[in-house]
Amino acid sequence: MAKKEVKKIVLAYSGGLDTSIILKWLKNEYGCEVVTFSADLGQGDELDPIREKAFATGADKVYIDDLKEEFVRDFVFPMFRANAIYEGHYLLGTSIARPLIAKRQMEIAAIEGCDAVSHGATGKGNDQVRFELAYYHFNPAITVVAPWREWKLNSRQALINYAKRNDIPIPITKKRPWSSDRNLLHISFEGGILEDTWMEAPENMYVLTKSPEKAPNKPQYIEIEFEQGNAVAVDGVRMSPAQLLAHLNTVGGEHGIGRVDLLENRSVGMKSRGVYETPGGTILREAHMAVEQITMDREVMHLRDSLIPRYAEMIYNGYWFSPERDMMQAMIDESQKTVNGVARLKLYKGHARTVGRKSESNSLFNLDFATFEKDQVYNQADAEGFIKLNSLRLRIRSLMQNKK
Amino acid sequence: MAKKEVKKIVLAYSGGLDTSIILKWLKNEYGCEVVTFSADLGQGDELDPIREKAFATGADKVYIDDLKEEFVRDFVFPMFRANAIYEGHYLLGTSIARPLIAKRQMEIAAIEGCDAVSHGATGKGNDQVRFELAYYHFNPAITVVAPWREWKLNSRQALINYAKRNDIPIPITKKRPWSSDRNLLHISFEGGILEDTWMEAPENMYVLTKSPEKAPNKPQYIEIEFEQGNAVAVDGVRMSPAQLLAHLNTVGGEHGIGRVDLLENRSVGMKSRGVYETPGGTILREAHMAVEQITMDREVMHLRDSLIPRYAEMIYNGYWFSPERDMMQAMIDESQKTVNGVARLKLYKGHARTVGRKSESNSLFNLDFATFEKDQVYNQADAEGFIKLNSLRLRIRSLMQNKK
Amino acid sequence: MAKKEVKKIVLAYSGGLDTSIILKWLKNEYGCEVVTFSADLGQGDELDPIREKAFATGADKVYIDDLKEEFVRDFVFPMFRANAIYEGHYLLGTSIARPLIAKRQMEIAAIEGCDAVSHGATGKGNDQVRFELAYYHFNPAITVVAPWREWKLNSRQALINYAKRNDIPIPITKKRPWSSDRNLLHISFEGGILEDTWMEAPENMYVLTKSPEKAPNKPQYIEIEFEQGNAVAVDGVRMSPAQLLAHLNTVGGEHGIGRVDLLENRSVGMKSRGVYETPGGTILREAHMAVEQITMDREVMHLRDSLIPRYAEMIYNGYWFSPERDMMQAMIDESQKTVNGVARLKLYKGHARTVGRKSESNSLFNLDFATFEKDQVYNQADAEGFIKLNSLRLRIRSLMQNKK
Amino acid sequence: MAKKEVKKIVLAYSGGLDTSIILKWLKNEYGCEVVTFSADLGQGDELDPIREKAFATGADKVYIDDLKEEFVRDFVFPMFRANAIYEGHYLLGTSIARPLIAKRQMEIAAIEGCDAVSHGATGKGNDQVRFELAYYHFNPAITVVAPWREWKLNSRQALINYAKRNDIPIPITKKRPWSSDRNLLHISFEGGILEDTWMEAPENMYVLTKSPEKAPNKPQYIEIEFEQGNAVAVDGVRMSPAQLLAHLNTVGGEHGIGRVDLLENRSVGMKSRGVYETPGGTILREAHMAVEQITMDREVMHLRDSLIPRYAEMIYNGYWFSPERDMMQAMIDESQKTVNGVARLKLYKGHARTVGRKSESNSLFNLDFATFEKDQVYNQADAEGFIKLNSLRLRIRSLMQNKK
Repeated sequence: MAKKEVKKIVLAYSGGLDTSIILKWLKNEYGCEVVTFSADLGQGDELDPIREKAFATGADKVYIDDLKEEFVRDFVFPMFRANAIYEGHYLLGTSIARPLIAKRQMEIAAIEGCDAVSHGATGKGNDQVRFELAYYHFNPAITVVAPWREWKLNSRQALINYAKRNDIPIPITKKRPWSSDRNLLHISFEGGILEDTWMEAPENMYVLTKSPEKAPNKPQYIEIEFEQGNAVAVDGVRMSPAQLLAHLNTVGGEHGIGRVDLLENRSVGMKSRGVYETPGGTILREAHMAVEQITMDREVMHLRDSLIPRYAEMIYNGYWFSPERDMMQAMIDESQKTVNGVARLKLYKGHARTVGRKSESNSLFNLDFATFEKDQVYNQADAEGFIKLNSLRLRIRSLMQNKK
Repeated sequence: MAKKEVKKIVLAYSGGLDTSIILKWLKNEYGCEVVTFSADLGQGDELDPIREKAFATGADKVYIDDLKEEFVRDFVFPMFRANAIYEGHYLLGTSIARPLIAKRQMEIAAIEGCDAVSHGATGKGNDQVRFELAYYHFNPAITVVAPWREWKLNSRQALINYAKRNDIPIPITKKRPWSSDRNLLHISFEGGILEDTWMEAPENMYVLTKSPEKAPNKPQYIEIEFEQGNAVAVDGVRMSPAQLLAHLNTVGGEHGIGRVDLLENRSVGMKSRGVYETPGGTILREAHMAVEQITMDREVMHLRDSLIPRYAEMIYNGYWFSPERDMMQAMIDESQKTVNGVARLKLYKGHARTVGRKSESNSLFNLDFATFEKDQVYNQADAEGFIKLNSLRLRIRSLMQNKK
Repeated sequence: MAKKEVKKIVLAYSGGLDTSIILKWLKNEYGCEVVTFSADLGQGDELDPIREKAFATGADKVYIDDLKEEFVRDFVFPMFRANAIYEGHYLLGTSIARPLIAKRQMEIAAIEGCDAVSHGATGKGNDQVRFELAYYHFNPAITVVAPWREWKLNSRQALINYAKRNDIPIPITKKRPWSSDRNLLHISFEGGILEDTWMEAPENMYVLTKSPEKAPNKPQYIEIEFEQGNAVAVDGVRMSPAQLLAHLNTVGGEHGIGRVDLLENRSVGMKSRGVYETPGGTILREAHMAVEQITMDREVMHLRDSLIPRYAEMIYNGYWFSPERDMMQAMIDESQKTVNGVARLKLYKGHARTVGRKSESNSLFNLDFATFEKDQVYNQADAEGFIKLNSLRLRIRSLMQNKK
Repeated sequence: MAKKEVKKIVLAYSGGLDTSIILKWLKNEYGCEVVTFSADLGQGDELDPIREKAFATGADKVYIDDLKEEFVRDFVFPMFRANAIYEGHYLLGTSIARPLIAKRQMEIAAIEGCDAVSHGATGKGNDQVRFELAYYHFNPAITVVAPWREWKLNSRQALINYAKRNDIPIPITKKRPWSSDRNLLHISFEGGILEDTWMEAPENMYVLTKSPEKAPNKPQYIEIEFEQGNAVAVDGVRMSPAQLLAHLNTVGGEHGIGRVDLLENRSVGMKSRGVYETPGGTILREAHMAVEQITMDREVMHLRDSLIPRYAEMIYNGYWFSPERDMMQAMIDESQKTVNGVARLKLYKGHARTVGRKSESNSLFNLDFATFEKDQVYNQADAEGFIKLNSLRLRIRSLMQNKK
């Protein structure tokens, strides 16, 4: 493939070895200006040193942006309004972060007059798809440079040699036998020793959660309040979206909540094992469902539930910025107008379980029927007609079969 | 409503106060022969004394049948092949038992030449629907007598007075402030003090599970083997369906697994709180999903998952014996042909979590690609075309919008 | 069943024999004030004489309202934005009218301080359900009187005798061997001779459409313009919703378009044959789909299409005023924002067929790619990667199966 | 891209200019043995001359197979059991043929010991995807040569020059301003002048159907009998699947039935206009739906209908040989067990309309209720309870909203 011509490029830059090599490699191979962009999505690393590091490795300009509130408010929360979950287990922590990174990266590309963007995702994974689908959404003519699909540095040793040849500092910390991705919603682990799908993931891998065995011996009760499907307060204290999620991460992590081990299906077609810690998100989803239980109409819920696998698939596969996601979000948001109330959960040794729920304004349970007599609302005798007509097609069918 | 004429009736009879009163009431009101039928579905009660009790209360004939293996093999397992769950939480323990009771009841009606059947379910609940839809499936001309919808005994005191007047022995055990239903799959609780949806269910209510706080401090690992989507062995020991479920109940109960508190939507239209203990079923579902992870195709899984809310709704609403359930079961069973393998779970303090899975015969993960070179299976460069074409419609759309 | 107590009632009144008898019967049986309400939905009858007739039969007050524009704008058009169709054939002409009649009837009940409403729909059909679900939506405490389910006048002769005894004039026109319902969207026929499902409906039954055999021998071309999914102009002439539909009825009727013969499933559980004439609606739906073809994203369309059977079922079953319909409408309306363009159809001898479509503002076809080179938009070589990765899961599966 | 090494290849060969050039090009570029394969799917061309032509152009071996019965029985009919239709209009005539061609091509590859296969589909269309997904299903290690994605012969002139240089005879018939694909189910047209989506397709393009204007002035009635969802007889005459479809093509073509003009979404992401003639298939689908109307349960039908867009998408996108299609087919076939009966259609001037349907064995309509009284089957009074309980959730919701 002929190399694309590039004048100025924005690189999604983490400051780690891989994207440092990419930064240098872009300078070397494309001879273009490189703008680096690092987003603070709550990954827990100090981002300040990144500036210096980027310049030292050859960056022409450096962007570092705190996107935590936007991340939770405009990406995590809309997704949680849908109770989205992928293949029954994965809360989409990485999937939902990529579109935001790509969005800001494309804004910077526009500001800086760049004709290209680049990222450090490999050619076998989901993230390349998520980044690039979003890039093209914002500018269908943008040039995308995906070094892992282009270069020959396909082994760890090749990368280290390249780094040495190019004076890129190699971290002295020992490489862990897995890779990980962290933000305010979760941390994920994959690859390395996890590829043995039968072997339990090692305890020392976990970052956000205590081992359930080491979690407190006493359960903790927590109350989470929702307005229109969004969590707004914990134990009576109102918080911003990012603050609230950070708080739930702390509480949930302490109780060992939110560990998931999933052999999942990637968008590129192979299966891959992911291990996840999503302490706050796990609590949030359970609490949200509890408030829906008391405020949401049955048919709304059942119809919505049947669409969640598809909605989650959209996000997993990188279609956050797509008309089909917009369309489905309109439906979900309509369903959330009445989701106002409080959930009460018991947190204990790795598990969050609903023990109560209430709604001042929108409870569909146990209403005060003072305005008219109770038996107008429910008359047991009505059940006979209900059953008789619901069974009519079955009875006719039986008659037909008996006749034969 | 004019009273139906009835000559001989089969009553689903538990031996408790309510169905004892119904038995007498049927004799009194309809002057018909009454055959009682009691099914052993693993509810844990001694069924033998029922015979004597039934005759003492006026039964003309008594059937007591052990249906445990049929229950698990032909009802629970097909449902678990689908990972069925109602409103995200309820494993349908009562819903799946009713059709089997009704089926056997109708067989007895045929054997005994009965023109009517009766049950003790109230006019506000789901069970009346489940019983009667199944009755009509087997005989659309059967007469159904639902005493709770007919009689005036609408308070506990009225019932007790009726029992006293008719020499029906009243149990001396104190009435619990909730009602419950138990079988080999679960025990459910509802009503009474549970109707305060904000108050936690009391610890002394639970029957099948230890409190997580009192569960062992050491996790237990368990391995469950599946063939065509059905569990066949635990920790290497093959068991019959009912034995296996009973075993998992014991193990799961010991670890406090399977408690659920759900405010759910009834088929008759109101919300109702149910608290459930499903220790074995909770383990079984998680294990089944683990084996599917390694053996099931992605598109099969996603399509199937989108239909599970509908399938679960069918069972919850009483449509087990229906052409739509048959149709969906055909699809589900087709999807399970390759679901052969073993799941490894960690049980600890109220939670069952997958930690490993394997499949000798049907793993779709990490194949040995000896027969041809690895890069024919996956070439990273292919991802570019994949992304380019998957984004094509999004890029064209962006072009259209930019043009405007 | 004990008779409900009623002080003042609004009756949906057509002026025909049946609702005239009901009007008198309500006076006789309930001794209440009766307000009649007649809606002009374009049924083509003169409504003015109804006032006198109603008073003559005992009405205390008479409402006659022209609802044609509201009908098409707020009921027909939202439904057509979804391409709703029931069981593949029926365009829901009666189903969509009932909720509007019920809405206005309940407004009148509120204005007039009525405690009850009544309608002339029978106890075997869909319309009773549609009326009453809507009534209860507006006032869950309203008393509903459904004479057909209450009275003993279950034969034509009984009705005529009742009319004679009560001085209700009996129309001299011969009773047709079917019943029908007409509004601006359609006319339906059912019952009588149509119950022989093998016999063709007679030519003299049809009202809105010429026989295709007698339609013009020359095809007519028509252009229909849409804005956000709503038809706004025909052949360049802008019209109000009701005018536009009336115009299409004339044109379509002339060409014999929109006849459908369907054996359908009623919401109450039995099958029933309906024959329909929907000339304008048939043209409208085809034209709407044509404009969607050029303006709507693929995934939006496919997802939407999978939900239309459910949406149509909601309307057919009477759930227009329901949170699930609101939720789905939000999704549909979001999908229609870009549905702007013109369809060209050929009308000929009973059939309307798209022959062209265009969109100035929202075409997703054949864009001018002047701003960047064409091969950036589509490079044939990309197809290889696309196919390779789309087949990956299938190839891995084949490998697994070959290995066995 | 480095050229793959190929020893022996099977080429799907039509005998036309394009595949003749491909045959020669494969010899020239790959220096491999070439086996040609031509399938008779009812495209109406004489296939015998192909043998000589293929050898003359350099083929080493030639296969010509009549697959018409297999095509209709094992591909067309299963698809029609589902009423499959793509984007509301396209009956998938080309989509369903590709998997069969690929299947036989892979059988020949196995017989002949070939390491590669090739086809003449371009890099912008759906057919390359359909061929290659099927190839990989049968042999995931097969090498696929797609000349249109590889070579530089990207204009008509380049092809003709290549033909001249290589002594390939160029047909003297004038090239038509569109391309087409024909088999026993349909003929499709695309490209060329059809790319103006506003211009009507020219009358002289059509092959299988008379113009409706020139069709007989007298309607024709036709009766089609179905067994388990498959058409088995027309007007009382039993025929094999291929004979039956051919017969319906003749009859439907005479009446101008089955023309469709659709701007559709390709699997590779762009929109494309297709014009289709499917005379027999159009009749068959309408007739099948008519028999379903009288024999199929409501819930089965509605559930099935909601899945048809997905099923049709699978076929359109090339996933005929896939586990998800197998799974869905199992469901569809289960739904067809009772679809036994006869449809009566009126064919006239471009349109096929159901006018009657009956089923001796499986009618769910108008049963003889002799065995028990009619009012046990349907009691009008039951409708009140049915409506009351179906509206319960709506009434509770209104109460909640009114309270606010």
